[in-house]
Amino acid sequence: MFFVPDIIEKEKRGLKLSKDEIQFIIDGYVKGDIPDYQVSALLMAIYFKGMDEGETADLTMAMAHSGEMVDLSPIDGIKVDKHSTGGIADTTTLVLLPLASSVGVKIAKMSGRGLGHTGGTVDKLESIPGFRCELDGKAFINAVNTIGAAITGQSKNLVPADKMLYALRDVTATVDSMPLIASSIMSKKIAGGAEKIILDVKFGSGAFMKTYEDALRLGRLMVKIGELAGRETVAYITDMDQPLGLAIGNAIEVIEAAEILKGRGHEDLFSLCLELASQMMLLAKVEKDKTKAEKKLKASIKTGKALEQFKGIIANQRGNPRVLDDYSLLPKANHQLELTAQEEGYVKKIDAVRIGLAAMKIGAGRQKKDDIIDPAVGVWIYKKVGEKVSKGKPFAKILANDAAKLHWAADEVKSAFEFSYEQVEKRKVIWAKITKDGVREL
Amino acid sequence: MFFVPDIIEKEKRGLKLSKDEIQFIIDGYVKGDIPDYQVSALLMAIYFKGMDEGETADLTMAMAHSGEMVDLSPIDGIKVDKHSTGGIADTTTLVLLPLASSVGVKIAKMSGRGLGHTGGTVDKLESIPGFRCELDGKAFINAVNTIGAAITGQSKNLVPADKMLYALRDVTATVDSMPLIASSIMSKKIAGGAEKIILDVKFGSGAFMKTYEDALRLGRLMVKIGELAGRETVAYITDMDQPLGLAIGNAIEVIEAAEILKGRGHEDLFSLCLELASQMMLLAKVEKDKTKAEKKLKASIKTGKALEQFKGIIANQRGNPRVLDDYSLLPKANHQLELTAQEEGYVKKIDAVRIGLAAMKIGAGRQKKDDIIDPAVGVWIYKKVGEKVSKGKPFAKILANDAAKLHWAADEVKSAFEFSYEQVEKRKVIWAKITKDGVREL
Repeated sequence: MFFVPDIIEKEKRGLKLSKDEIQFIIDGYVKGDIPDYQVSALLMAIYFKGMDEGETADLTMAMAHSGEMVDLSPIDGIKVDKHSTGGIADTTTLVLLPLASSVGVKIAKMSGRGLGHTGGTVDKLESIPGFRCELDGKAFINAVNTIGAAITGQSKNLVPADKMLYALRDVTATVDSMPLIASSIMSKKIAGGAEKIILDVKFGSGAFMKTYEDALRLGRLMVKIGELAGRETVAYITDMDQPLGLAIGNAIEVIEAAEILKGRGHEDLFSLCLELASQMMLLAKVEKDKTKAEKKLKASIKTGKALEQFKGIIANQRGNPRVLDDYSLLPKANHQLELTAQEEGYVKKIDAVRIGLAAMKIGAGRQKKDDIIDPAVGVWIYKKVGEKVSKGKPFAKILANDAAKLHWAADEVKSAFEFSYEQVEKRKVIWAKITKDGVREL
Repeated sequence: MFFVPDIIEKEKRGLKLSKDEIQFIIDGYVKGDIPDYQVSALLMAIYFKGMDEGETADLTMAMAHSGEMVDLSPIDGIKVDKHSTGGIADTTTLVLLPLASSVGVKIAKMSGRGLGHTGGTVDKLESIPGFRCELDGKAFINAVNTIGAAITGQSKNLVPADKMLYALRDVTATVDSMPLIASSIMSKKIAGGAEKIILDVKFGSGAFMKTYEDALRLGRLMVKIGELAGRETVAYITDMDQPLGLAIGNAIEVIEAAEILKGRGHEDLFSLCLELASQMMLLAKVEKDKTKAEKKLKASIKTGKALEQFKGIIANQRGNPRVLDDYSLLPKANHQLELTAQEEGYVKKIDAVRIGLAAMKIGAGRQKKDDIIDPAVGVWIYKKVGEKVSKGKPFAKILANDAAKLHWAADEVKSAFEFSYEQVEKRKVIWAKITKDGVREL
């Protein structure tokens, strides 16, 4: 038995909290024995004084065990989960699900329906007519074992401590704390049953982490937590200073994923998917050699195997797989507007957040929990930083179901682009890879 | 209208909060619109990032205005209030009430019944048979105008913001923050109607402020708040590394006050009372010259005027004034025990807190709100630091109504004393005086 103010005082002075103290706080908070006001004071003290890796790992495990611990052991093989810290036009999960499972990685994906510029992966997939993410536990496990991949909504009882802490952090200005961010992410992955974890930590104007250094710190911390928790973790630090892919929406992100699987997508999204998928293969031990893994993945795309795999996943979850061949079967927006370049030049900068917010406000994402997502709307960008635009040629397209919103969003997207007469260097996508052995800058 | 997390975020980054933002927080908190958990996060951010003098003054005024603002204008003259940050054997208020009012300072004293090693001033006075502190507003004002001094309990609606904030700080490890301490003290003085304020900021092992430097910081901050709030404030930094007077209790502190007024008390307590009382005379403008003020005070004691004044105050509040001539009329403890020196030597150190806690535990003070004070019990010390003790002669006495507690307290008090064969320097009582013009070390 501990006395809460003593624990807060310890943290306030920058002293290390014991595993038992951390456990006491999390258990007491979830049970309702420790009130919000003590926890929020503690969170603010953590913001200022931090936590070391050991404390953060203890916090992570206490949180993970605060609710259901998903058991994926009935699934054959090593379960690898990929998590992205979130960004704009981040269609990697939609690609990885079929791509990695097409070469033998078992993917049991649990995904939430959070707030954001676009829906989550479940929302995106549900833009496919018929597609349903409500699978019961047995059907889910069975699907992964037979087809290789399935996706389901998150259990409501997964990491209740995180739901409570996150809601509290949100209203007490304590969101931006490394140990709190890291424990929030890792506790969900661990409770979700992942044996190995791949993290895509994004940085830049469109990411939560604004700088490379912060992303690196977060990545290192999470890799360490994974190690301490006995879940091998690999983290990538990747660029989110501009949108990753070209589509920002729901149905259109399904289209973009299909394009990647057809070998026609944008190189940035493709290269990141290839890196993540090959890393998944290594962690899942379906392949030992990185180069061979990449070869297999490219072959899977080339032969159409990956696309067929996507169709199989869709069909298994009652969706219409024909959407991948005929995009017109996906929800369509009533209005669309292309933005054209006034002059010849190069894209110098794209304000990813501005585009993301525009997409959200025309209905692609949720601002509030109860908002209903419009699967048809969104923004296509045709040109990324360093790419050439031609006078009179389009560089982006807005899809909306409301004419007024269409024009407003068009202005926003236009303002998000900066052009230059001089040639501009393209941005690197993958900046660093972190394993338990250290950081390798790429 | 403000958004609370933005205000917390501002404070977290060390940015200055506006007067309106501070007002919004205090108003919202008292009304119940802003929950504890946001306020506690803000308090922790204030602990780490502080507040400047202007912000602290704004906080103080917002708090002061959160409830009743006492109107002392029906009392003639300038109303001066003295406040001590609290210590052990701090009998100054009991002395100042009759002493300063005997020379023309009007004293309308409002005092609470807090937790502490001994009772508050109202508890101490209520050890006098018949004495009652429940005066209604009119009787209180009338008594001050006719007799010169009166004491009453604190209005329940005085500074509700402070009551709420203090309760919250107590359970969230945010008590030890200068701006929060300063605003708590000053808001109560200002709401209590004081036009001029004298602060006795104590430091040392028996005080809340452990170091001279911290006491100085707190004193300067409160003098500044007073200036910004238009209430001239003078602060003294005084020693609390040992008990100030000789009595730690309730009835026995009345006895010690009477002794001072009879010109027989300990020089430490006397010198501080003389300084505070003369400063009260200057602020109240009943005397312009400090030396003359001190002369008048000494004369009031010598002629018996001050003692008569104390009797008048007591009689007016239904107490028996004869207790001052015959201490046996005060409550008496069933058991007493004197501690005697084993060898000749000097007092080197007195652990004031240890003695205070011993006194509290035998019933002199409240640990919890509902504890009932035993007016008879307490601790007399006969010797202070630097004073000589003789073999077999007593240096302290314990008064208790429970034999077991008596012996326990005797052990505690004995352990609180350290002796030395060599002569030890006496401790200075008044270390510094702070006015709006600056600090003068004494």
